[in-house]
Amino acid sequence: MDSLPRCGANYVPLSPINFLKRAAAVYASRDSVIYEGLRFNWRQTYDRCLRLASSLCSLSIAKNDVVSVLAPNIPAMYEMHFAVPMAGAVLNTINTRLDASNVATILRHSEAKLFFVDYQFVSLARDALRLLISASSAIPLVIVIDDIESPTGIRLGKLEYEQLIEMGNPGFVPVELKDEWDPIALNYTSGTTSAPKGVVYSHRGAYLSTMSLILGWEMGGEPVYLWSLPMFHCNGWTFTWGVAARGGTNVCIRNTTAHDIYRSIALHQVTHMCCAPTVFTLMLQDKETTAEVSFNRMNRKVEVLTGGAPPPASLLEQMESLGFRITHAYGLTEATGPALVCEWRAQWDQLPHEDQAKLKARQGISVLTLDEAVVKDPKTMTSVPRDGMTMGEIAVKGSSVMKGYYKDPQATAQAFNNGWFWTGDVGVVHPDGYIEIKDRSKDVIISGGENISSVEVESKLYTHPRVLEAAVVAMPHPTWGESPCAFVVLKKGTGGSGDVSESDIIDHCRKNLPKFMVPKKVVFLEELPKTSTGKPLKFELRALAKGFMIQSEKACNNKPSSTPANKTSWRTPAAYNNAKQQQQQPQIMAQSRL
Amino acid sequence: MDSLPRCGANYVPLSPINFLKRAAAVYASRDSVIYEGLRFNWRQTYDRCLRLASSLCSLSIAKNDVVSVLAPNIPAMYEMHFAVPMAGAVLNTINTRLDASNVATILRHSEAKLFFVDYQFVSLARDALRLLISASSAIPLVIVIDDIESPTGIRLGKLEYEQLIEMGNPGFVPVELKDEWDPIALNYTSGTTSAPKGVVYSHRGAYLSTMSLILGWEMGGEPVYLWSLPMFHCNGWTFTWGVAARGGTNVCIRNTTAHDIYRSIALHQVTHMCCAPTVFTLMLQDKETTAEVSFNRMNRKVEVLTGGAPPPASLLEQMESLGFRITHAYGLTEATGPALVCEWRAQWDQLPHEDQAKLKARQGISVLTLDEAVVKDPKTMTSVPRDGMTMGEIAVKGSSVMKGYYKDPQATAQAFNNGWFWTGDVGVVHPDGYIEIKDRSKDVIISGGENISSVEVESKLYTHPRVLEAAVVAMPHPTWGESPCAFVVLKKGTGGSGDVSESDIIDHCRKNLPKFMVPKKVVFLEELPKTSTGKPLKFELRALAKGFMIQSEKACNNKPSSTPANKTSWRTPAAYNNAKQQQQQPQIMAQSRL
Repeated sequence: MDSLPRCGANYVPLSPINFLKRAAAVYASRDSVIYEGLRFNWRQTYDRCLRLASSLCSLSIAKNDVVSVLAPNIPAMYEMHFAVPMAGAVLNTINTRLDASNVATILRHSEAKLFFVDYQFVSLARDALRLLISASSAIPLVIVIDDIESPTGIRLGKLEYEQLIEMGNPGFVPVELKDEWDPIALNYTSGTTSAPKGVVYSHRGAYLSTMSLILGWEMGGEPVYLWSLPMFHCNGWTFTWGVAARGGTNVCIRNTTAHDIYRSIALHQVTHMCCAPTVFTLMLQDKETTAEVSFNRMNRKVEVLTGGAPPPASLLEQMESLGFRITHAYGLTEATGPALVCEWRAQWDQLPHEDQAKLKARQGISVLTLDEAVVKDPKTMTSVPRDGMTMGEIAVKGSSVMKGYYKDPQATAQAFNNGWFWTGDVGVVHPDGYIEIKDRSKDVIISGGENISSVEVESKLYTHPRVLEAAVVAMPHPTWGESPCAFVVLKKGTGGSGDVSESDIIDHCRKNLPKFMVPKKVVFLEELPKTSTGKPLKFELRALAKGFMIQSEKACNNKPSSTPANKTSWRTPAAYNNAKQQQQQPQIMAQSRL
Repeated sequence: MDSLPRCGANYVPLSPINFLKRAAAVYASRDSVIYEGLRFNWRQTYDRCLRLASSLCSLSIAKNDVVSVLAPNIPAMYEMHFAVPMAGAVLNTINTRLDASNVATILRHSEAKLFFVDYQFVSLARDALRLLISASSAIPLVIVIDDIESPTGIRLGKLEYEQLIEMGNPGFVPVELKDEWDPIALNYTSGTTSAPKGVVYSHRGAYLSTMSLILGWEMGGEPVYLWSLPMFHCNGWTFTWGVAARGGTNVCIRNTTAHDIYRSIALHQVTHMCCAPTVFTLMLQDKETTAEVSFNRMNRKVEVLTGGAPPPASLLEQMESLGFRITHAYGLTEATGPALVCEWRAQWDQLPHEDQAKLKARQGISVLTLDEAVVKDPKTMTSVPRDGMTMGEIAVKGSSVMKGYYKDPQATAQAFNNGWFWTGDVGVVHPDGYIEIKDRSKDVIISGGENISSVEVESKLYTHPRVLEAAVVAMPHPTWGESPCAFVVLKKGTGGSGDVSESDIIDHCRKNLPKFMVPKKVVFLEELPKTSTGKPLKFELRALAKGFMIQSEKACNNKPSSTPANKTSWRTPAAYNNAKQQQQQPQIMAQSRL
């Protein structure tokens, strides 16, 4: 039976490009992309992508060349997810929140041949290109994307996106994909370290991830998908390709404002959207449009897939009362977006809201195309028991995991140690098989031999009525080695920080946390420093906290115990767990990395 | 980027076995299989499969050996879908409605090493084995499957299924799958020629088909799936594997009776089931239990995927009024089950019931993992226009298409001509991209969901001493959808037709064919209408047979009709279309082959 041959009829390389070809055939006249007054159907989108792909080939783009793009969630950005691989090239979407230096680093490292720049980011792109010129680096050919709906005339070089579409050949035959292992996309991690890494996806991995996210989220037919998640995040968590697979409609918005979100939902009867929980905060703050959406209330709920951080219970309740149904996912750039989805179980419907929120804040179970997601001691390779207590590092394997880091064999080998991809996140497995993250390995605070999850402390800070945002990091301590230091932003318009003191916050923590986990210092900030993806920059906060060591001994009344400063890190989960098991059951308050 | 290596972390061969491993991890305590008073959860099912796989290895089953099974929809049949490939072997499920001669042919051709036989089919199996012995063919080792719930003690040889489970090692490590192209299953077509063909599925193809059927049918989480479709049909249209992928519950039933279907739906809150439309007829006829199910009406509808023939409008309406929501699919053994699904579109909700039924009776659009499904002129390779009128042959390609026919390179090459798998079905494409079948090149008769080879019946007719010529076609039947109708020309000079009656011929067939293949009507003709090349014009005979439906239930008044002169065959779509276009708009009278 082995001798039966592969042929064109029974073996076609897996590629998400096929989703577009199929959509053009079977969903031809359905709306594919809506953007302001514009509206394309799937046949038109396919036609535009073929034209663009042919123009890329005319510009001498060859197999595996990198095509970079700096753009918001506009039709051009969507189309490039198909047109670039149809030309045999690799799509590199760049985070628009980076600075010129980061952008230049990515253009240089990726050796981009073409650089598509939305008119809104021309100034950022120009600065990045100047950096390349001054370093005598190769300069990619630049193509500006003007606003197709209301042209601005802004230019950076001679070429414009719509010209390429117009000049292109709709009869173009896409470059044949011979091996599904070929690269389709290159996504740079924002990285909490200074050097971003280029994560390479294969056509196979992108295809399988797309399938498993549609399945995990149960996104049915004819979705109307609102682009509230940047497409530059893991290719929109693969929903760039997924909406084509489902013959859905992409509702593009240039800026992720509450107003535009509400307006689009009401106007286009949006059924699905993805976003980080911070977008919920934006939406809830905009009270006027909240009233508007209540007025325009749809018959069906809007499904929301969220990740990047677990959705706090109060946010969940407020959002769900507005008609949103929220699903929590966890993933990483390296796993092609979500790797775990917190699949809801019917039996949970009967539980109190608070318990539901706790269950929903867990990261969940592996998506279908991951072979396995486990929590292991990376040294002994033993899986932790399913007790919701014992910690280990989360590791995944499967065909939806990245090919590796571009031009970085050492980092690739390290990430793929022992046949697993190691996420760097520390978590537990609950008796029902659901995984919950306790911390980033490097954010664990080691105090007097005890490991403290910064996330756990933060979750208690959030229960204080005046706390808007909180981040906890390690602060050097002469006796304990390290102690928790809290950075807090208070809610506005309720009296400022004047009426909440450091000792108020510390008292609050004392009532809710084991003594050793109580922050030894609380610092009030106007805002937290954040990464381009909106995560607190703990790297910077740790640098700040270093200066607080001496003061910390005054502010708090700590009785130094005889416990030596045990430097055991989370990397030896055994020691971590020993300490843990003497304490209470860990709180449900994890943080994911999407 | 091409140099990034595949490794255990990022490249795992696709196999539906992984769905069970994952289900055991993330849906561990959910019900996996229910059968009468028995109930397993996913961890137990995984454990039982590991044990069985280890026992198979102990019985010296090696990589790619064939393991055959003759059983109804019982837990053992389900478990073998995982355990057999976990032992590296290939599962061959045999249609239990075949006769001993067919079963012996399959055992011989497949070179089965093991033969699992449910106690209900011991007599059929014994007859088949005797045929093998008398032909000095190799005899597989036989293992009887007793009723785990109410043991009967019936034996055929020494081994019994539950013993293998008991003796097995739950710590067994499944035989490593190195190549996803390796075979997982071997399914014999009943075939339109007398020689059944062995269709080989790869792990990859089975995996992808499973994914796309869950997606195409939108089977969500926690389904309760009733086994009203035989698992021996394309591995239960892949839902053997699919229910594990979704962490659902398999409700097994030994016999597909209306009573058992209604009882299971009410008892287990069934959400999903598959069946041929003839099962609807069964269900509607059983009025008492219909009343019962109305009384036990569930809160949610039961989703039904049907295929094998388009569901007639009246049946649809009656079934849907009972609380069933029906989706129509079309497929073939060679396409690993459904290849097209008639995806419902929200806009059709507004149409009158009759129009809805017509739309639903179409075969639909390609499933997601098929690369393409087209309707082409096989000679010119031109696709037909999307006019709902012009006919061509349906062809598909993609990774869910079979590896090929076992030990039949010629038939394989023919089926895969020009890079497509040619279905042998003639159809049209509607303006909305939905495919509808108009006729079949092969004259399969679909009776009660079973494919009957007209050639096979004809060959038995030819063994009657008085039969000169015979042609068998489908005749409409109120219960079975279709039944075989035989047209017979008797030998001259031996007494004419006067001394051979219809019942003589039927009696002859009863002695030589499985019951369901016996013609329900025999028509004596002076000569058969034929093509120029001397082949019977089955097109014309079918037209004749249509008139027999009502009479067929009463008695037979055979008036040999005059032979029409139309020489058109579907194999020349151009000629066919010319003829067709002179007629009315084509009737919705399609037939699919699942």
